[in-house]
Amino acid sequence: MNKLKFSDLNKHFNEEVVLKGFIDNIRDLQYVQFMILRDRTGKIQVTIEKNEENKKLNEIVSSLTLESTVTVTGKLLESPKVKLNGMEVIPTSIIETSKSSGELPINYKDLSSALLDTRLDYRFLDLRNEKNIMMFKIQSCFIEGMREFLYKEEFTEIHTPKLIGAASESGSDVFEVKYFDTKAYLAQSPQFYKQMAMSSGFEKIFEVAPAFRAENSNTNRHTTEFTSFDIEFSYIDSYNDVMDFEEELLIAGLTRVKEKYGEIIKTMFNKEVIIPTRPFPRVKLNDLYKELEKRYGYNIPKEDVGDMNAEAEKLTSKYAEEVYGHEFIFVTDFSPKKRAFYHMRENGIPQGYDLIWRGVEITTGAQREHRYDILCEQAREKGLGEDVKFYLEFFKYGCPPHGGFALGVDRMTMLLLGMPNLKETMFLFRGPNRITP
Amino acid sequence: MNKLKFSDLNKHFNEEVVLKGFIDNIRDLQYVQFMILRDRTGKIQVTIEKNEENKKLNEIVSSLTLESTVTVTGKLLESPKVKLNGMEVIPTSIIETSKSSGELPINYKDLSSALLDTRLDYRFLDLRNEKNIMMFKIQSCFIEGMREFLYKEEFTEIHTPKLIGAASESGSDVFEVKYFDTKAYLAQSPQFYKQMAMSSGFEKIFEVAPAFRAENSNTNRHTTEFTSFDIEFSYIDSYNDVMDFEEELLIAGLTRVKEKYGEIIKTMFNKEVIIPTRPFPRVKLNDLYKELEKRYGYNIPKEDVGDMNAEAEKLTSKYAEEVYGHEFIFVTDFSPKKRAFYHMRENGIPQGYDLIWRGVEITTGAQREHRYDILCEQAREKGLGEDVKFYLEFFKYGCPPHGGFALGVDRMTMLLLGMPNLKETMFLFRGPNRITP
Repeated sequence: MNKLKFSDLNKHFNEEVVLKGFIDNIRDLQYVQFMILRDRTGKIQVTIEKNEENKKLNEIVSSLTLESTVTVTGKLLESPKVKLNGMEVIPTSIIETSKSSGELPINYKDLSSALLDTRLDYRFLDLRNEKNIMMFKIQSCFIEGMREFLYKEEFTEIHTPKLIGAASESGSDVFEVKYFDTKAYLAQSPQFYKQMAMSSGFEKIFEVAPAFRAENSNTNRHTTEFTSFDIEFSYIDSYNDVMDFEEELLIAGLTRVKEKYGEIIKTMFNKEVIIPTRPFPRVKLNDLYKELEKRYGYNIPKEDVGDMNAEAEKLTSKYAEEVYGHEFIFVTDFSPKKRAFYHMRENGIPQGYDLIWRGVEITTGAQREHRYDILCEQAREKGLGEDVKFYLEFFKYGCPPHGGFALGVDRMTMLLLGMPNLKETMFLFRGPNRITP
Repeated sequence: MNKLKFSDLNKHFNEEVVLKGFIDNIRDLQYVQFMILRDRTGKIQVTIEKNEENKKLNEIVSSLTLESTVTVTGKLLESPKVKLNGMEVIPTSIIETSKSSGELPINYKDLSSALLDTRLDYRFLDLRNEKNIMMFKIQSCFIEGMREFLYKEEFTEIHTPKLIGAASESGSDVFEVKYFDTKAYLAQSPQFYKQMAMSSGFEKIFEVAPAFRAENSNTNRHTTEFTSFDIEFSYIDSYNDVMDFEEELLIAGLTRVKEKYGEIIKTMFNKEVIIPTRPFPRVKLNDLYKELEKRYGYNIPKEDVGDMNAEAEKLTSKYAEEVYGHEFIFVTDFSPKKRAFYHMRENGIPQGYDLIWRGVEITTGAQREHRYDILCEQAREKGLGEDVKFYLEFFKYGCPPHGGFALGVDRMTMLLLGMPNLKETMFLFRGPNRITP
């Protein structure tokens, strides 16, 4: 655990250092051998002159293969002539710690010509690409920023079960599990359980956990398993409180990312991290329809009336940029027919929203209906019966007014870094045709 | 979100305050009504004299049921005669925000006579018990403490898939999922994938996520789904580095818990949070057997030789207390027959350990075998074939020496707070006979 980070080497000139890393490159020339080592923070050149004194080291280097790992001990010199960071290590010892057994099945350094499916088959090599590995450091940082904001706001992190007894919200698109002599299902979201926590008096909770959708579709933003960042909190006055809080949360996460990785995201991903101003623009669906028609000649198709679709989301972002100069926009006042039964309604209008960012919906949020009788009625109206009975019980013995929302971590990462699809953004993508490696 | 915490009320004497909470109790006397409100931070008395002026409020209070939620506006007075925190609120307005529809099916305030199964059926009420809700605040704090230590150490949080294509490590005890036209399985642990991250060069990762075990057993420490806190890191010299790091991590988590909840844990759970000293004692299995025999006349049964069992774990903690005055003890040098094929071996001895705390194993950790040929051989020896082939590939093209461990979050919480079993410790327990609510 005392591994020296290559990015810290410039603090150790003229010292003996121990380098541990992958062999990124070897050049075996007539009078000298150059070996480039790589760790997750950077690269360093190791220089071995070919001479009698170095005979053993020269032999070792000749036997090494690219992508093997080594431990190199030697003296670190400041060497302005060395292109790579102006430094080099003159080794006294080189030990191979693992051996790469031949040519790599993909060239992870230049993935432009690799088939995506091959890349995913060899994802463990694909991730050695510096851009790919960087995605996860950035994602981790983004979640860390949001988490710390939630801790500061005294939220409690909970862990709800993913194995559930009923097919939950919709019935369709749910994976079935063989559960001893009976069946179970995989939770599509922790929705019911995070609301249970409200009934139990937890007041403020969050969860970061996998969610499962048995959707047999192959778009660039669908997956059968994803990481859901779920938030729920009590004693709100309206869904405006939920939107306000989501604004604060996203700003906390994006600010952390910008501070730590803003420059890298600019140079490596060619994307600017923009900290949004508050409040984010908020528009009612029907007003939005009018704007989209007026500005872009877009009319929502009949089957999507009362709702959004992918095309409308794209144009909505364009509209938000043009009119508000903002990357984010809340859309409210959806049709109750298109929203879940547990959204509270006022005068028939669901008290919820979608949040659009960079042309894609990243969140659905709402104030929930917490009053038992009304909730039962709304469930009945949607034709939901036995499957939600256990959930309705949560509201029978008092429950504070509450609301919440969920963010798709993978989708957020994709948009943050301008990645073309989820397959390349997830650590290991899962789709209808892919459950390996 | 501007809800006033009841624990902060003493900063607001003589001010108008807005209280939002559950109705914990009502006493409707001849000349006065007392209402006790509860939020997750405390309780407060609302006092309404019965008189002409208060007629409307009196009527409202008479109509309220226990466990409904209300918003009460009124003046906060310092009242030394009031037993409950020496303060009371004299209301000008009381609004019911949700109605509890009658007698609760369990008395969550006194659970001593309730059947555990009934409690679990009504877990949403069971969790209103102040001790139960407190468990999760403490668990969240414990994880927060460990997480922040890991962030400081520059670990990256990853999210590995729970849907997997092969039955993974053992083959048995794995849940099968209907996956479109084929089958998938639920990951028993992220073991293979966290090692994949090492091969990809992530160096330091962690994950907090559900893990699934299809074990048809009903002990007080088994469950079919639990939250696993997994750590893996590269460039270690031996499994001593892994044990050292686990010591640091646990101390970080326990220190945070003690600072924030030490007193509450003492009064509410009758448990002391002890920050362990470093290093934790470390004992070889065969030496331990001798000590257990000599001290307690305990001989490990034939079928468990080379391994531990529940009885041995209990006695091992006793031994650690007596000899080292320590709550934790690492046991090393298990038999290769009893350890996973991916543990590195030296002279045939697995380079791994179990960590025992308060009589129960909380971790298995190890240096992993990262050398492709040896790893293949060890897999073959255990009779593992096609199912681990994708995993073996991870080591074919170089992989740094690495190790790691996993902690069961629920089990840790159970031991930390002296809870009698996992069923009462988990937010929602899952076992062979329970997948609801």
